[in-house]
Amino acid sequence: MREVAIIGIGETKIGELWDLSLRDLGIHAGLEAIQDAGVTGDEIEKLYIGNMSAGRLINQEHIAPMIADYAGLEGTPAVRIESGGASGGMALAEGFMAVASGMNDIVVVGGAEKMTDVGDVEAKDILSSTGDREWESVFGATFDSLYALMAKHHMDVYGTTREQLAQVAVKNHYNGARNPNAQFQREIPLKMVLNSPAVSTPLGMFDCAPLSDGGAAVVLCPVEIAESYSGKPVRMMGVGMGSDHMAVHDRQSIDTMKATNLAARRALDMTGLECSNMDFAEVHDNYTISEIMAIEDIGFFNKGDGGPATQRGDTALNSKISVNPSGGLKAKGQPVGAVGINQAVEAVIQLRDKAGDRQVDDAEYGLTHNVGGTGGSAVVHIFGRWSP
Amino acid sequence: MREVAIIGIGETKIGELWDLSLRDLGIHAGLEAIQDAGVTGDEIEKLYIGNMSAGRLINQEHIAPMIADYAGLEGTPAVRIESGGASGGMALAEGFMAVASGMNDIVVVGGAEKMTDVGDVEAKDILSSTGDREWESVFGATFDSLYALMAKHHMDVYGTTREQLAQVAVKNHYNGARNPNAQFQREIPLKMVLNSPAVSTPLGMFDCAPLSDGGAAVVLCPVEIAESYSGKPVRMMGVGMGSDHMAVHDRQSIDTMKATNLAARRALDMTGLECSNMDFAEVHDNYTISEIMAIEDIGFFNKGDGGPATQRGDTALNSKISVNPSGGLKAKGQPVGAVGINQAVEAVIQLRDKAGDRQVDDAEYGLTHNVGGTGGSAVVHIFGRWSP
Repeated sequence: MREVAIIGIGETKIGELWDLSLRDLGIHAGLEAIQDAGVTGDEIEKLYIGNMSAGRLINQEHIAPMIADYAGLEGTPAVRIESGGASGGMALAEGFMAVASGMNDIVVVGGAEKMTDVGDVEAKDILSSTGDREWESVFGATFDSLYALMAKHHMDVYGTTREQLAQVAVKNHYNGARNPNAQFQREIPLKMVLNSPAVSTPLGMFDCAPLSDGGAAVVLCPVEIAESYSGKPVRMMGVGMGSDHMAVHDRQSIDTMKATNLAARRALDMTGLECSNMDFAEVHDNYTISEIMAIEDIGFFNKGDGGPATQRGDTALNSKISVNPSGGLKAKGQPVGAVGINQAVEAVIQLRDKAGDRQVDDAEYGLTHNVGGTGGSAVVHIFGRWSP
Repeated sequence: MREVAIIGIGETKIGELWDLSLRDLGIHAGLEAIQDAGVTGDEIEKLYIGNMSAGRLINQEHIAPMIADYAGLEGTPAVRIESGGASGGMALAEGFMAVASGMNDIVVVGGAEKMTDVGDVEAKDILSSTGDREWESVFGATFDSLYALMAKHHMDVYGTTREQLAQVAVKNHYNGARNPNAQFQREIPLKMVLNSPAVSTPLGMFDCAPLSDGGAAVVLCPVEIAESYSGKPVRMMGVGMGSDHMAVHDRQSIDTMKATNLAARRALDMTGLECSNMDFAEVHDNYTISEIMAIEDIGFFNKGDGGPATQRGDTALNSKISVNPSGGLKAKGQPVGAVGINQAVEAVIQLRDKAGDRQVDDAEYGLTHNVGGTGGSAVVHIFGRWSP
């Protein structure tokens, strides 16, 4: 297999973007990435789009050729990858393979989701269709309540505290306040999280990431030709994927995400690196408990130490491991099917030393972690600084 | 890149399968393919599922890990590929790449669609969401009417006749009558097609493929290890993809599918073979006009000669080129996101000499052609008989 580089990135601001449609989101991000890379439309051999549910959100399936069309790339192979909230990360894995295999040289991978054209209740229902519909949501189990179950169990088993959960949100808002593309660019005090209205006990409003509109894109090519383009390259070193029982009640443990564990192990094995080599990680913090489970299940901390580690500040910017320097889903925002690409965009910004006030000092390696459903699927990517 | 073989196939009967859910369809087909190949669950490294719109059809997204889960493969990476009616063929292209790249050895690619859990009107609306929603179907343009436009134009420009269109259906029902998995296993006379109720002039009821339930799956591996498994291997020699403007009115020509043309050219170029080398082709005959355009746009016949060639019998079983020996979408049925895999299953059956009364004599090479939307995307695969 050939080694792969990212040579261009683009993303829209994340938020409630009333004036941008799904196709606009895809095109804005894609064109920015193409310009950043300095590739021409003719050079692009394939387009992957990660998206969760355009069918239900905007009544449009088959969105990959639609975005190619409106970006002036009609004729170019274009395919959509769907894996719930992990759609973006899974699309990136396919793009990686297209280049690594030698099948394609220049590949664009985008992610886009338009969450706000439907009401909140419908949006939550659509999100819950990435869990096991027949055995969970038809009986009233929402994502909020399923993640609350995990949180409660994690607290019972490991002594994780309400304050430790809240500290995840405080940290990610601190970072998001330093990210010009973040949906929430302001810090919040611990008390605000603790006193926020209950969503599903023990999770309050500030324990939950928003549902956002957004688009993001990256341009991939083989390492050998990466320096012939204008965007400063970053290495894509490894990818790993995993799955698990769809329904939370079928899992052996609900305080661990097996899919995350498998994906991280597989990605690290591909690179020969370990968690201790990573300088930062963008993890899937759709809820505060998700980040605590993720940093344990990936292997940054022992099982049960995710909460205390967060409280100790070990996941803060430029501490032991900078977790979610972008602000994460919590503060940067959650355009569901785009999240995995937003994470890759942050990894490239960090490894190019272009993250400004949220820069991870001397970042050499970073990891991104993207989850579908309540843990039914997960994908992990490893990125490295360019060294010609 | 490594060479790729198919070593196992499985498919459900196609039809209105009231007693089978989407997960059942995926599992039945998948387990049959795994048994045919003689691989164990532990050996399977990745699962791809082609599916058009489970989100709208059964309110369930994220179906790939769900099917993996219920097939006893939880933990295995599983991802859904969506490209409208070309979802199955596009999933197969990703599976091919996973093996060709050296990333995975044993990969299962399935397709499944459950069309009959919603009413006919809703099913047609969902299908039309693979065209350009904002510029076509919101103004009332259904797939029936868009394909009727193409047919009318083809008739005007090339003199294609109503009888030539009808002959496509007659031929495909003849073949389908010899396929035990086909939805319609009976021959129909030309008169029945000509006299069938109008759907959208010039297309009548028998010019339109049904909307069906069905699942299909194949098992892929590198050529070098193909003979160590029990299923007789077939070579996957080439793959090509293309796209076009999503909306029919944006295209340069509506009697040609540019996406098909690009996909076929790219697939053939990869193999060094030409159309004249093919012994059979499974083409995307969702309407009778679609088959006539396909056999021209792939390159089996000159532009405009698709109708006369069909009337001459040049596309009948064991003629110049056996087109849709399985019965095609018209008679075998149209489980939308599974179609591309059903086509691959037929290619393997033919190249294993196991097609019984519909066997293409001495078949050495075959081509499959799968279209998304009204031609917004297309994918072509080339298969070859096993020669150790």
